[in-house]
Amino acid sequence: MTLSAEAAAEIAAQRATEAPTRRAVVPALEALLYEPMPVLDQGFVRVVDYMGDDAAVVQAARVSYGKGTKHVSNDRGLINYLMRHRHTTPFEMCEIKLHVKLPIFVARQWIRHRTASVNEYSARYSVLDDGSYRPELAQLAAQAVTNRQGRGAPLDPAAAQAVRDRLDEATASAEATYRWLLGDPEGAEAEGGERIDAEIGPGLSRELARMVLPLASYTQWYWKIDLHNLLHFIALRADPHAQHEIRAYAEVLARIVEQWVPLTAAAFRDYRVEGAALSGKGLQVVRRMLAGETVDAAGSGLAAREWRELRILLGLPAED
Amino acid sequence: MTLSAEAAAEIAAQRATEAPTRRAVVPALEALLYEPMPVLDQGFVRVVDYMGDDAAVVQAARVSYGKGTKHVSNDRGLINYLMRHRHTTPFEMCEIKLHVKLPIFVARQWIRHRTASVNEYSARYSVLDDGSYRPELAQLAAQAVTNRQGRGAPLDPAAAQAVRDRLDEATASAEATYRWLLGDPEGAEAEGGERIDAEIGPGLSRELARMVLPLASYTQWYWKIDLHNLLHFIALRADPHAQHEIRAYAEVLARIVEQWVPLTAAAFRDYRVEGAALSGKGLQVVRRMLAGETVDAAGSGLAAREWRELRILLGLPAED
Amino acid sequence: MTLSAEAAAEIAAQRATEAPTRRAVVPALEALLYEPMPVLDQGFVRVVDYMGDDAAVVQAARVSYGKGTKHVSNDRGLINYLMRHRHTTPFEMCEIKLHVKLPIFVARQWIRHRTASVNEYSARYSVLDDGSYRPELAQLAAQAVTNRQGRGAPLDPAAAQAVRDRLDEATASAEATYRWLLGDPEGAEAEGGERIDAEIGPGLSRELARMVLPLASYTQWYWKIDLHNLLHFIALRADPHAQHEIRAYAEVLARIVEQWVPLTAAAFRDYRVEGAALSGKGLQVVRRMLAGETVDAAGSGLAAREWRELRILLGLPAED
Amino acid sequence: MTLSAEAAAEIAAQRATEAPTRRAVVPALEALLYEPMPVLDQGFVRVVDYMGDDAAVVQAARVSYGKGTKHVSNDRGLINYLMRHRHTTPFEMCEIKLHVKLPIFVARQWIRHRTASVNEYSARYSVLDDGSYRPELAQLAAQAVTNRQGRGAPLDPAAAQAVRDRLDEATASAEATYRWLLGDPEGAEAEGGERIDAEIGPGLSRELARMVLPLASYTQWYWKIDLHNLLHFIALRADPHAQHEIRAYAEVLARIVEQWVPLTAAAFRDYRVEGAALSGKGLQVVRRMLAGETVDAAGSGLAAREWRELRILLGLPAED
Repeated sequence: MTLSAEAAAEIAAQRATEAPTRRAVVPALEALLYEPMPVLDQGFVRVVDYMGDDAAVVQAARVSYGKGTKHVSNDRGLINYLMRHRHTTPFEMCEIKLHVKLPIFVARQWIRHRTASVNEYSARYSVLDDGSYRPELAQLAAQAVTNRQGRGAPLDPAAAQAVRDRLDEATASAEATYRWLLGDPEGAEAEGGERIDAEIGPGLSRELARMVLPLASYTQWYWKIDLHNLLHFIALRADPHAQHEIRAYAEVLARIVEQWVPLTAAAFRDYRVEGAALSGKGLQVVRRMLAGETVDAAGSGLAAREWRELRILLGLPAED
Repeated sequence: MTLSAEAAAEIAAQRATEAPTRRAVVPALEALLYEPMPVLDQGFVRVVDYMGDDAAVVQAARVSYGKGTKHVSNDRGLINYLMRHRHTTPFEMCEIKLHVKLPIFVARQWIRHRTASVNEYSARYSVLDDGSYRPELAQLAAQAVTNRQGRGAPLDPAAAQAVRDRLDEATASAEATYRWLLGDPEGAEAEGGERIDAEIGPGLSRELARMVLPLASYTQWYWKIDLHNLLHFIALRADPHAQHEIRAYAEVLARIVEQWVPLTAAAFRDYRVEGAALSGKGLQVVRRMLAGETVDAAGSGLAAREWRELRILLGLPAED
Repeated sequence: MTLSAEAAAEIAAQRATEAPTRRAVVPALEALLYEPMPVLDQGFVRVVDYMGDDAAVVQAARVSYGKGTKHVSNDRGLINYLMRHRHTTPFEMCEIKLHVKLPIFVARQWIRHRTASVNEYSARYSVLDDGSYRPELAQLAAQAVTNRQGRGAPLDPAAAQAVRDRLDEATASAEATYRWLLGDPEGAEAEGGERIDAEIGPGLSRELARMVLPLASYTQWYWKIDLHNLLHFIALRADPHAQHEIRAYAEVLARIVEQWVPLTAAAFRDYRVEGAALSGKGLQVVRRMLAGETVDAAGSGLAAREWRELRILLGLPAED
Repeated sequence: MTLSAEAAAEIAAQRATEAPTRRAVVPALEALLYEPMPVLDQGFVRVVDYMGDDAAVVQAARVSYGKGTKHVSNDRGLINYLMRHRHTTPFEMCEIKLHVKLPIFVARQWIRHRTASVNEYSARYSVLDDGSYRPELAQLAAQAVTNRQGRGAPLDPAAAQAVRDRLDEATASAEATYRWLLGDPEGAEAEGGERIDAEIGPGLSRELARMVLPLASYTQWYWKIDLHNLLHFIALRADPHAQHEIRAYAEVLARIVEQWVPLTAAAFRDYRVEGAALSGKGLQVVRRMLAGETVDAAGSGLAAREWRELRILLGLPAED
């Protein structure tokens, strides 16, 4: 990730400015403020603003005049209770605003979360020049056999290199075409040194030229979301079933949450990330096992796939 | 509006606490922070937290690394442009959190605005003891004749007094019943001095007892909303067609917006509050008039009611 | 529940009208259409319209040209998979519209679900004359001791009768005041036979008069929601922790879902209603028990309350 | 637009199936049902399901037991009133579900409308093989000079042809790379006849391979939205400031609305599409002009750009 000198200066200027406030302040998050946290090869997440802290969750749950409860242990207990019983509205009372640079194919998964506010860099209004995502060799994997929508075994090194060379070539070609279409002499030169503006005059409009850019192209947006919906995003997108690239972002978001609202983050880990949902049939199987009964696949009432998943969840050995 | 000594102390403690922040700070809003602004006889609005300022709107619209633009005049121009062309997403990038005390019939209108977060004081969990709304005599008006859903001429003083006496009596009776049902001896005494707890034992559960409370009862909630949706709320609820009581709240919200984001507030006034929407047919009439044509009701193509409304809007004299 | 003759005739007329459609049709739901299903003493739920069926969930999940899959067993398998893995968007592709009559205190809980469309009968525009909710004697219970927001032991019969007499009296008094305020001679007569219009002239505006109505008053609304959000509503409101009165409605909604989308309803029962969520710590305890270890409260790492709740969930005997 | 034989057969089968329903039926929309309406070179919009009609808007506004009002003229009057006064909730009571095939850069604008349900064809799970958008020569235009985000003068024919040749080449190259990455021999052959599977084994996972596809690639989704939000979408996206390609879709949506709810469509045209918003300052200018005053730019109090826009709106000649 590289920033222009101008962007770096603007960030430094914002970090250098402090003013007193009566609002809730989270020093650990203040320390991160405005600083880009790198993700993938060229992406980043920057915390641009935030509202509230763990005490604000408690304060809203109690509809109180003052801050949280008297003691941190009470705040922790109440936050655990709210998380356990899925009383979600108090977690909506904290808000965070991020500046994110991310590949377009990741942005398209990301935007499916509708309960957030977004302002994206406009490729109708401005030229997109943030480059494209280039995966690491180790990330280049074959289609999964067991999971129709995931990644399986890594390609062998030679194949990985061949694939990446081809990706590099495709990216370079698409970016050169984009600049050629815009009537940019550099784009033309990259394609063989002829001046393009003589050929296409003022250049194709930006809103059309962008059509040739690949889904790997980076875009940027401001994204604002409340804590409840952010946790839901992280639960889905930091999950092992999520695509590696969006997971890389979700893991950075999870680290931000740890700094911002540590009590909420701990409750989220225990009750969501490390917890599990049992179906009614699955719960019956567990009860029977705990009562001393030996249950096998046939007697479980579960479909074969659910039976396998349940055994893994319960830490039981795989069956022959 | 009266606060308990405990509530007043908690507010004072929060106002006395300051810490440095790198975030956007609005001194005029800091001055208001936590302080209850009275509304109606016992209600209030308190600003509990906020995120962003006018520059944050600009920053999001430009997806920039730094704050707003170089000059305030540029910020004003961009904000006017965004408001005029209804580019609403940058205004979603500011957020505010309020603590509101309000009558239940107002709360029921308020909650119709779905794009906000709410935590309400629970009458299942706690006893509601915030009293009931008592209108001023001047507010007691007859049903409007021309507008089926509004208020018409004020009652004459004697009738107003009779109505208010009856309201006072109804409120007192309902509140006494509520306390009686809860097994509260004071409630019983208010009804004639007998001890009620002997009669109904532990008291009726709070979730049932509240059924007898009138819609005039006060409730409280934390309410969090972004600036775009807040402006939409104000546009609808500070309108002359809104009921007086919710309008009283909307006007306080409008004053808060003036302190918080003055450039946005000015654009909102010009383009929304003081502006007007013309229908296609109405616009044709205006064009014909400006071209020197004399247009009458029959020639306007408008229904009688729309024709009247258009003349009022354009400042033309009423017709015979 | 009683309907006016006019309402009954309108319902009969709608039920008698049939026309051919190419859309998905669910005969079991057609049989229910427009018919009020009674809830509580005077409330009801009427299915007014619906869109989609189980096959529509499958069709959307596959983004296909035709209906569902070839075989019902495939549809069932896919719907179970979607429910198990919380792929919620295909369930948003079915929609239902209901006409509901319900007490205002229930309506206030109900409206907290924001992802729905609502049109409520206006008490500014019209007189509310649907009466008030009168609980059955068996429903009158004391405040719960263990659960601060619920209902505990039923009152003894004499106390229940005393409470209900008091509720009846409070309701009658509030409704008479409402009519008196509106200038309705019947209201006046109910209060002692004097003509009220001489006293308060045209009557107080409806938007103010309603202030005296109790939270037990019935209101009505049209409510439209998609299947995913409807299931979420049912999961929260048919839960034993929900208040009896809203639970009565949620159970009717659950019956409607069974008729409408039986495969989805079955998956919902297994994975949501009869299933359970384990925390990370709870899951560790289960794994240790299944591995043959004896785990006690102290060794579980759980708080006392969570330990008790876990033992109940797993069907283990209570500890001394 | 071309459909596979299988897709065409599934559509024909659905169109051939009719069943009786008690729900509101719109014959004009039934006639369109399931049939793809072509948009751009390969895209389409298909109406897959709908709920409600004009009468359903009226029914919800009145919270009535039966259908609409007695007379169509009353329905029209009420619908006009609701549209004029922006009482939007009754329009939420109608719902429509569409199957849309559209280029990804259009999909990215489209998805910004958050109040809708979407299921998109998954390029993680399946191979994207719907081709890419190829603009007509007449659509190839230079960047606008006056409007930083739009399209200006068309390119001259030779330049347009050169641009389109380059677009064709870029598309073909990206699609061949995609197939090569997936290990598809045809993709390899298109690139020179060598078998690729020997080289990269099982092929790169689909979720990574799609990265090279251009933003012009077609995708598909099911999209479900209520009438109020659909009208808002059309107002923004059928506007002359919207990009040509999404406007092409919005115009098809507008035609569907005309068939579905003709009274609502007419009110929408008059009050939204053909109407206009005046700012407070603009309204003052109009009032002064109508009162006979001559107003010039300097005396208008408007910025130069707003003054120009106002004169155009009012049909006044451009100033020197």
